[in-house]
Amino acid sequence: MEEKGAIKTVDKSITTMTQLVMPNDTNHLGNLMGGNLMKWMDIVCAMCAMRHAQIPVVTASVDNISFKGPINLGEICILTAQVTRVFNTSLEVYVRVHAENTLSGNRRKCNEAYFTFVAIDKVTNKPQPVPPVQITNERQEELFNGALRRRELRLILAGRMKPQEAKDLKQLFA
Amino acid sequence: MEEKGAIKTVDKSITTMTQLVMPNDTNHLGNLMGGNLMKWMDIVCAMCAMRHAQIPVVTASVDNISFKGPINLGEICILTAQVTRVFNTSLEVYVRVHAENTLSGNRRKCNEAYFTFVAIDKVTNKPQPVPPVQITNERQEELFNGALRRRELRLILAGRMKPQEAKDLKQLFA
Amino acid sequence: MEEKGAIKTVDKSITTMTQLVMPNDTNHLGNLMGGNLMKWMDIVCAMCAMRHAQIPVVTASVDNISFKGPINLGEICILTAQVTRVFNTSLEVYVRVHAENTLSGNRRKCNEAYFTFVAIDKVTNKPQPVPPVQITNERQEELFNGALRRRELRLILAGRMKPQEAKDLKQLFA
Amino acid sequence: MEEKGAIKTVDKSITTMTQLVMPNDTNHLGNLMGGNLMKWMDIVCAMCAMRHAQIPVVTASVDNISFKGPINLGEICILTAQVTRVFNTSLEVYVRVHAENTLSGNRRKCNEAYFTFVAIDKVTNKPQPVPPVQITNERQEELFNGALRRRELRLILAGRMKPQEAKDLKQLFA
Amino acid sequence: MEEKGAIKTVDKSITTMTQLVMPNDTNHLGNLMGGNLMKWMDIVCAMCAMRHAQIPVVTASVDNISFKGPINLGEICILTAQVTRVFNTSLEVYVRVHAENTLSGNRRKCNEAYFTFVAIDKVTNKPQPVPPVQITNERQEELFNGALRRRELRLILAGRMKPQEAKDLKQLFA
Amino acid sequence: MEEKGAIKTVDKSITTMTQLVMPNDTNHLGNLMGGNLMKWMDIVCAMCAMRHAQIPVVTASVDNISFKGPINLGEICILTAQVTRVFNTSLEVYVRVHAENTLSGNRRKCNEAYFTFVAIDKVTNKPQPVPPVQITNERQEELFNGALRRRELRLILAGRMKPQEAKDLKQLFA
Repeated sequence: MEEKGAIKTVDKSITTMTQLVMPNDTNHLGNLMGGNLMKWMDIVCAMCAMRHAQIPVVTASVDNISFKGPINLGEICILTAQVTRVFNTSLEVYVRVHAENTLSGNRRKCNEAYFTFVAIDKVTNKPQPVPPVQITNERQEELFNGALRRRELRLILAGRMKPQEAKDLKQLFA
Repeated sequence: MEEKGAIKTVDKSITTMTQLVMPNDTNHLGNLMGGNLMKWMDIVCAMCAMRHAQIPVVTASVDNISFKGPINLGEICILTAQVTRVFNTSLEVYVRVHAENTLSGNRRKCNEAYFTFVAIDKVTNKPQPVPPVQITNERQEELFNGALRRRELRLILAGRMKPQEAKDLKQLFA
Repeated sequence: MEEKGAIKTVDKSITTMTQLVMPNDTNHLGNLMGGNLMKWMDIVCAMCAMRHAQIPVVTASVDNISFKGPINLGEICILTAQVTRVFNTSLEVYVRVHAENTLSGNRRKCNEAYFTFVAIDKVTNKPQPVPPVQITNERQEELFNGALRRRELRLILAGRMKPQEAKDLKQLFA
Repeated sequence: MEEKGAIKTVDKSITTMTQLVMPNDTNHLGNLMGGNLMKWMDIVCAMCAMRHAQIPVVTASVDNISFKGPINLGEICILTAQVTRVFNTSLEVYVRVHAENTLSGNRRKCNEAYFTFVAIDKVTNKPQPVPPVQITNERQEELFNGALRRRELRLILAGRMKPQEAKDLKQLFA
Repeated sequence: MEEKGAIKTVDKSITTMTQLVMPNDTNHLGNLMGGNLMKWMDIVCAMCAMRHAQIPVVTASVDNISFKGPINLGEICILTAQVTRVFNTSLEVYVRVHAENTLSGNRRKCNEAYFTFVAIDKVTNKPQPVPPVQITNERQEELFNGALRRRELRLILAGRMKPQEAKDLKQLFA
Repeated sequence: MEEKGAIKTVDKSITTMTQLVMPNDTNHLGNLMGGNLMKWMDIVCAMCAMRHAQIPVVTASVDNISFKGPINLGEICILTAQVTRVFNTSLEVYVRVHAENTLSGNRRKCNEAYFTFVAIDKVTNKPQPVPPVQITNERQEELFNGALRRRELRLILAGRMKPQEAKDLKQLFA
């Protein structure tokens, strides 16, 4: 059993979901429906967030997702989620989606997104602190550093921060 | 039958979906799963986009969504989608989500989002021009005007535009 | 918040459900399965009934439904439900179903039905009085007036009334 | 292999479906949703109709259904369908539903209904003659005889027959 | 109501499930997915086991299943389950699967399997004795006699019995 | 793109599926239904087999599965599949299932199974040769060696081999 206070690396909670695109999952054009892919992204990110936090979580927000080309019936969809940064009672999770055609062996990147979750105490139903995450390589550091800027953007878009106050974001437009 | 060339107002393609939150739709905490709500949002927006375009559409992107509090088992979820602006072969759709508790009669706003769709020719599988949309009131004009700024943000986030080139967006941070 | 004793018009609880016919919903001929349509009709009527009654309801009966032609994969199905009349602890809901082909813009009426629901107290599990409904136009009055005749027919078909006692119904056959 | 011209008894196409009520099938009160039961009734009747006709069928109508008390999560639902009468290109199917509590061993009748199907040629998409059905006992004869009266009622309710012309039905109200 | 102590024959708990293969149930080749068939087999066997035991059951094991040829979209799948033998707190159920093509009237055997269930007390969550089953014909006796050999094989495969100790099984290889 | 003739290691087609147990997946006792777990096992094994074969596959058989204790609502289910051995036109896949409780961080082994798939040519619908698999460690060799014995058992159980002819298996009982 996991000790709750132990140091937690990003690697420890990385979660991979592999899905075969079935008739059930397609739209009337025969491709994976965008809404279904979003549902899978939400689930794999939630599993990753709960593995890290060891507390139930609820989806707080999802950042802009852009869909690059269709994923076809019979192809395999691979979703990999990892924690990027912890913000007191919330945490950001990054998910990458690849599609693989098993007949050709081709694998292509389809999209990526950032989901934010809030940890909720089961009894009080109130937000609860999430343990910090330990970075162990450069790619993880890059994601960690970008998290502040993405958070500012989220707060602005939700109307909870004025654009002029977004220090990190402002520099981009300078 | 609808004449394809006729002028199309925003009102003409407004689409309302009403869903009862069933056990099927909930997460293991007994609330509507974020991923399921995103799926419904995608479907109602796609219906709205197809009604306007009269051409099959595929989801191109979804902007930042923030979730405000849980929607419970047995509550009603009302999703209303309307076209905001047409960009040559793509169109932006705005969706608002309300939750209603039928026992109390209470209705509360839950979230909103912007989905972008590309119209696809069924035979050539290539993007196809979408007919323009006619604005008929101030609220629609506001959404129409904001669309350019949101599009710039989308292009920046997708790495297809440099932040310095985003004229509309830049003003916000000035 | 809704005051429980307030006068409730028919319009207040009108409920519209819009569904895109997906592979999931079709039979092995590629059309919307009759059973799936009935399920949607039951759900939209239940939502309408609960909105009016502000009490949980269960389906008590559904009147004869006749299906006019197939609804195809990729078409939109629009279901609109409204309360017609309240009978002490039960209420009748009328639902109309239209199908819309988004490519042609054509919309056609598909079927209609009358569902009856009983309001159930959550604690005692016993039927509970439903507040009256206020009629505001001629079409609603017509539906209100026909409700007695339909109820007689329901009671006869359920073996709870003798045909000879059905005053309203008898006149039709005179 | 079945010879298409052979005489077909009612017994030959009797179809029994047994379903365990799972969380998936319940409404937010924890009972089998009326709409789900109707869906199962439609499927078991369609299977029975196709077994008899050996031609694809589509649901044409369903007669009044009345629901007697809830069926609970974990109970077994037994649906039995049999052909009652053939009308040229359509046929009527009778379905009885029982619920069984496996812990007590209790079995109770829940409801019954009459579904009508039209046989459709796969190529021309037009109605096609259905082979006659042979009655072999009294109960089947009773159902066969009642079919005319139910058909008159169906035609009246669909607005395709005037009540005064319904000979069989009229006698009931005399 | 069933008396709990009454003698229970095999026939009393025989359970038949009939399923129409729908788009929902197929893999990307258009045939019934193996995993879906296994799910149906598990459910029909569980219903049969609960009917006999009158106690909740959980799946303990399933023996080797071999799939003979595809079952196609639109075909009917008939699953029949019967208890073969009771082992104190567990019981073995035998299930046969047939596929029927309604257009040709052809019916073919597809596969068969043996599922074992353990009866669980709802309160203590501990295994509970299952009442004995009474054999009434030769086929049932054959299944009853084979049950010991299958059980030895199960225990060996689960690593809970040494092959050399499997008396019944050893004779087969002599 | 993958060259079809290239040497293929076991590692190359290892497939991991991670599933969150949702209300949808549970039986009426609130645990993951055995039949649902089998469905997931079938899908993850099929994806692994197709990745290795680069040809569509159908499930030919599944060996004895024994279920060790319940997997609860809200737990995570991790399924990992790997090819063990190729037999001309078929291949055997081994799958291990673990359950993880995200709150405690506990992970426990739940079950394991061997699935066999046949590779099918999409045009001729006939079995097609599967490329050989390369073993790279001891554990893989062990699984490779055991495959012959499991195959003999499968053939005996399917009635296609006499027990006396099963060389590998016979030794176990000596």
